[in-house]
Amino acid sequence: MPDFPLPPGSTIGVLGGGQLGRMLALAAARLGFDVAILDPEPDAPAARVAAHAIVAAYDDPEGLKALADVSDVITFEFENVPAAALDRLAELGAAVAPDARALGIAQDRLAEKTFLNGAGAPTVGFAAVDSVADLRAALANLGAPLLLKTRRGGYDGKGQIWVHGAGGATTAWKALGGQPCVAETPADFRREVAVVAARGRSGEIALYPLTESHHEAGILRRARAPASATPRVLAEAERIVATILAALDYVGVIGVEMFERDDGKLLVNEFAPRVHNTGHWTLDGCEVDQFEQHIRAIAGWPLGPTEALAQVEMTNLLGEEANAWRKLAQEPETRLWLYGKGEARPGRKMGHVNRLTPLPR
Amino acid sequence: MPDFPLPPGSTIGVLGGGQLGRMLALAAARLGFDVAILDPEPDAPAARVAAHAIVAAYDDPEGLKALADVSDVITFEFENVPAAALDRLAELGAAVAPDARALGIAQDRLAEKTFLNGAGAPTVGFAAVDSVADLRAALANLGAPLLLKTRRGGYDGKGQIWVHGAGGATTAWKALGGQPCVAETPADFRREVAVVAARGRSGEIALYPLTESHHEAGILRRARAPASATPRVLAEAERIVATILAALDYVGVIGVEMFERDDGKLLVNEFAPRVHNTGHWTLDGCEVDQFEQHIRAIAGWPLGPTEALAQVEMTNLLGEEANAWRKLAQEPETRLWLYGKGEARPGRKMGHVNRLTPLPR
Repeated sequence: MPDFPLPPGSTIGVLGGGQLGRMLALAAARLGFDVAILDPEPDAPAARVAAHAIVAAYDDPEGLKALADVSDVITFEFENVPAAALDRLAELGAAVAPDARALGIAQDRLAEKTFLNGAGAPTVGFAAVDSVADLRAALANLGAPLLLKTRRGGYDGKGQIWVHGAGGATTAWKALGGQPCVAETPADFRREVAVVAARGRSGEIALYPLTESHHEAGILRRARAPASATPRVLAEAERIVATILAALDYVGVIGVEMFERDDGKLLVNEFAPRVHNTGHWTLDGCEVDQFEQHIRAIAGWPLGPTEALAQVEMTNLLGEEANAWRKLAQEPETRLWLYGKGEARPGRKMGHVNRLTPLPR
Repeated sequence: MPDFPLPPGSTIGVLGGGQLGRMLALAAARLGFDVAILDPEPDAPAARVAAHAIVAAYDDPEGLKALADVSDVITFEFENVPAAALDRLAELGAAVAPDARALGIAQDRLAEKTFLNGAGAPTVGFAAVDSVADLRAALANLGAPLLLKTRRGGYDGKGQIWVHGAGGATTAWKALGGQPCVAETPADFRREVAVVAARGRSGEIALYPLTESHHEAGILRRARAPASATPRVLAEAERIVATILAALDYVGVIGVEMFERDDGKLLVNEFAPRVHNTGHWTLDGCEVDQFEQHIRAIAGWPLGPTEALAQVEMTNLLGEEANAWRKLAQEPETRLWLYGKGEARPGRKMGHVNRLTPLPR
């Protein structure tokens, strides 16, 4: 283990070279760090702004060794990194943050909900589903409809299907490929909110203001922050996030997505053990954004301030929407972030804009 | 010549790989551009955050060709790039901004002052000095003392000496090595101010607020912005900068350093045809900082807003001062920028901090 805090000039290793890795690399550079990116694709967006680029599969022992050799601390930018990769890095003596336990829980929807409830963070009702019989039993116990989700690998609304009754159980089970699943009761939410927060190596935590998030077709479309909410909801959101961070003995930035119900009750949908799309507004709305905050946390630096300096609406630019850069660059209230991706496939996150207005007084 | 505006995915070439190039590279990445850095030193601070790093002398034809081949537009991060390099790039058909004329004028203090006066921008009195006899004639015509400066190559207070009378002429002339010089009358200023501004490819200009700058031993120590000033001084500063930009048919960001005298008269000291240390406060004090503004200008994009969002005091971290990063990282009002330089030589610019306070209402 290195001595923390890491001095400037140290190297931050990142598993994954997409836009989150790219924005982490830019933040690390501001603080005088070098960055090493491991990604299976050559010329990944993050690799093009990093001192070291390692092109290798996430479970390639040679690639992982090269990353460990050059890095003083290693993190990841997405949660589908194979757990074996983190095990291998640990064997090599690398310092990895967040740790393998946080990643492992986040990778498995059943483990995640079980962990959350155990830690005192409420969720929807759920049941493990490993067969059609399990699914029928869940429908009998929890009622219909249920949202059937694969335990692993789903993202942006993929890998899930509604089951409206026992008659649809077989079809739903087959539609998801007969994989281990979890069945969830409806959240009946009035809106979705998220909190991006950080925990440092000395255990201090810092929460960014509550964000209201809007999905379309399972993909985050817009996020607004700071979101207005009742004092009770704000306090409960803070309690839940602090509880999760402490229970995981977490180091780094986390994104916690929650449902707010009509009665003001909050249910945790999921957490991502990394910087998060609902925190992109902090890039232009806070003095220390979530990317610098993550670098500070994993490097053992003190966390930075998280107050909002403006009201921000973040909108993802999906697919060809990023082609509107000419128009967006002309809007004085719009800050444009483009990720350096080549092909504008439908639904692909190509960039985002933050639109700023003064905070209400 | 490429079609402007350059689309995201284009490559910005930069001559020079120091901290200004590094911060240009970070800004370019935010807008989805790739960056190519040419610098004689391997592992230059900017090269470590760029997609392409070319290690070559500034006048190396192979290196310049490699830069031109990969770049859609080329700029420079310091003004001591040899003019021959820009000529070579022009021969290769590269688009260079700012252009060779602006660079050539800024490289020669005599040409610079002659240009400024011709454009209607006032300066101190001055005379060309190519011999001890010229220096004696200047003392007779302009009076004593005079500040003798080499026409080329001085920076951070180097290459200049005060001459207090004809008796000191020979000593002074020899002290500067008998090079072509310019002799200047004292500015008798009450303070130094600077304006960082940009001009786009369609001729539009955008000025950042006036900055008050404080030098120590010839090196910028602190800059405060927005600086308070009388409406007459603000208007005159704007007029002067707009005049210079128009007279140069300039494209990019410029830094114009001025003396403010007790009577409120402004005299231009010099301009730098590049992003400027007195503009580092914009990194945390404006929505679009001087680095993004320069990328926007040379890429043919519309210029961004330049209003100050906070009162900022920028302090350079020289030499071992950057070793205080632990303490600086703990200050909530302090934004820390470190340049990724190895050796903390005395006086070397290793980083800077921006300290923010709310704007006066």
